[in-house]
Amino acid sequence: VQIAIALFEGFTALDAVGPYEVLNRIAGAEAVFVGERRGPVRTDTGFLGLVADAGLDEVAGPDVVVVPGGPGQVAHMQGSAVVDWIRSVDEATTWTTSVCTGSLLLGAAGLLRGRRATSHWLALDQLPGLGATPATDRVVFDGKYVTAAGVSSGIDMALRLVERHVGAESAMAIQLGIEYDPEPPFQSGSPAKAPKDLVATLTALKPFILGG
Amino acid sequence: VQIAIALFEGFTALDAVGPYEVLNRIAGAEAVFVGERRGPVRTDTGFLGLVADAGLDEVAGPDVVVVPGGPGQVAHMQGSAVVDWIRSVDEATTWTTSVCTGSLLLGAAGLLRGRRATSHWLALDQLPGLGATPATDRVVFDGKYVTAAGVSSGIDMALRLVERHVGAESAMAIQLGIEYDPEPPFQSGSPAKAPKDLVATLTALKPFILGG
Repeated sequence: VQIAIALFEGFTALDAVGPYEVLNRIAGAEAVFVGERRGPVRTDTGFLGLVADAGLDEVAGPDVVVVPGGPGQVAHMQGSAVVDWIRSVDEATTWTTSVCTGSLLLGAAGLLRGRRATSHWLALDQLPGLGATPATDRVVFDGKYVTAAGVSSGIDMALRLVERHVGAESAMAIQLGIEYDPEPPFQSGSPAKAPKDLVATLTALKPFILGG
Repeated sequence: VQIAIALFEGFTALDAVGPYEVLNRIAGAEAVFVGERRGPVRTDTGFLGLVADAGLDEVAGPDVVVVPGGPGQVAHMQGSAVVDWIRSVDEATTWTTSVCTGSLLLGAAGLLRGRRATSHWLALDQLPGLGATPATDRVVFDGKYVTAAGVSSGIDMALRLVERHVGAESAMAIQLGIEYDPEPPFQSGSPAKAPKDLVATLTALKPFILGG
């Protein structure tokens, strides 16, 4: 099973690395990081580069595609080589997935019309404009399309994907291997649980957080 | 606050990227990925390279050090430039931290003698040989030394660190920003919770999982 993780300038690192860390542990899996061209792609903070080992034209038939989000996503919404690639490889994928605002790129590729999908909680309101019905679940399956909520949710998404694609036993083994027994220190990980004033503060910072 | 994340060949990506994704969100933080020399450093799977933007000799006084684990750690246990660097910068850090088997590198640097520490659950038995008392907590603070359990635990560690270093409000905001409201699909994320036969299976694979 070939897993292609799409990189673009300004992506959020954990969106990509969370699913990678789970999915590469599928027996026989090959993960490949794909960029517009080979070479380092910088994250949203500018503090980190991940190496794309392949250009878009070198990965034509992945079984699984993972599209991360991040402020850099905004620049692709009117179409781009990355969006064209997503649309093209989707024709033959087993699973087309996204984390955070990566779902907006799936939407820009026209793949979410009439589907349930999720995104970073600050971006859910952009889904209807792309033809999708927003869901507040952390991980949303609709056919072969799997979208996850913000940043850290890609770990949950990937474990659910292993469960569906390989089986529960494999997913449980991977969860134990990465010691995923989370202890979030606060009840603040979703807008439904966080204090209202904190939600308001981050909502006011939306353009800064999501980019644009 | 300067946060230095140490990279070495064969590290585990999420060990490094989990804490990075949290800590870079501290207001005014600068994160720097440090390798033996500048340039890409490959992860344990070989499927991914992260770019070290600085060589060890270029980062002399970070406030926070994060040492990831991964099978590549084994090659450093008898001493290496990375271990020497950890020992050297530790003299002036505010926090010296590790994820997964990164704690064994702190131990190799002589920093855990007489301290409580944790590591990947399969590596806890190596801590006494390094002078440390193993703890099964997911995140262990002992003075300025903060060690986390396997792979995914670095996210929890970093949020706890933000709480201590900056304050609970900042940590809560970061947790909401990365939408960290985990939904682990199984009760299998720790050896205490996972089915016994699964724990036995992974224990039998220990040399393969931890490297060596």
